[in-house]
Amino acid sequence: MSNKPKILNQAIVAQSRLFRIEQVDLRFSNGVETHYERMLGSTQGAVLIVPILNESTLLMIKEYCVGVERYELTLPKGKIDSGESILDAANRELQEEVGYAAGKLTHLKSISLAPGYSTQFTHIVVAEELYPCESVDGDEPEPLEVVSLDLEQLNEIVVQEECTEGRTIAALYLTREFLNGNVEAQS
Amino acid sequence: MSNKPKILNQAIVAQSRLFRIEQVDLRFSNGVETHYERMLGSTQGAVLIVPILNESTLLMIKEYCVGVERYELTLPKGKIDSGESILDAANRELQEEVGYAAGKLTHLKSISLAPGYSTQFTHIVVAEELYPCESVDGDEPEPLEVVSLDLEQLNEIVVQEECTEGRTIAALYLTREFLNGNVEAQS
Repeated sequence: MSNKPKILNQAIVAQSRLFRIEQVDLRFSNGVETHYERMLGSTQGAVLIVPILNESTLLMIKEYCVGVERYELTLPKGKIDSGESILDAANRELQEEVGYAAGKLTHLKSISLAPGYSTQFTHIVVAEELYPCESVDGDEPEPLEVVSLDLEQLNEIVVQEECTEGRTIAALYLTREFLNGNVEAQS
Repeated sequence: MSNKPKILNQAIVAQSRLFRIEQVDLRFSNGVETHYERMLGSTQGAVLIVPILNESTLLMIKEYCVGVERYELTLPKGKIDSGESILDAANRELQEEVGYAAGKLTHLKSISLAPGYSTQFTHIVVAEELYPCESVDGDEPEPLEVVSLDLEQLNEIVVQEECTEGRTIAALYLTREFLNGNVEAQS
């Protein structure tokens, strides 16, 4: 494995209300110099929750996603607030988006979005021992539709046209392997 | 399912050499108006290739990723050139990054990166019937390290600290299910 390239310089080259783009100038160990751009994510990262209602039932949501301009079958997720732990953020987002709280939360793995050009990390949290909670207002412009699905039908879920998000598909398979005892939690 | 929100207005609010950020003003079917920002990906999208050397061997690459500032264990990928088909782009990137060409290419599924705030789609292509090809120069600043891995050890691969990309993990599991006859290709 090569030595890591050296960062020569970094500077914000564009920003909007939500996004910041940074240029990074690098020198690789072979002497080649280049410059990249990367999207700066939030420092704390995001959580993505896999809510397991019982041993055969998974909860997902249908949410309008402006990036793809349609409703997507996806998992609850959101940014971690400043000072909030990964598991607390997961339980909060679960309550806001799905209407359940969890008695058991497991940080399964942290995954990157696009490691070549984004600093963003998303922490996958498996939520078990669910119990209904009073409605907690989130930041959604319309109520989210919560959908119950059969965990055994995972391959049928992920080939659906409205289930496209890479992080969601990765989290679903990782969770299946975790629940089957084939993958251990990260921490 | 609600009716889709109506797009009232859209405008580029920030851009750099590689990124363009668009603001989109929306009115949901319940009358709520809001504005989002999204990152505009390339129109053609990207390809991500899962190279299958033989029935027990998968090829991956180790590549420096400036977003996470370390070498990542990932799959070959790249943007589709203008006028290029998904399968042609996959075969080109495979040759540039792995040094093999494929006799059989299957477009398995197209996945979104972050459907809530990115228009980006990545087309997963399974590459089989590989044969070594002459070196084709890509756009890499240093040679990529190609790694042979045992397909049966997929759960050990995806829990590695340097294997974090959501799209890569999704593509690996989808490919395993495809090769086992449990998931059909999209087209």
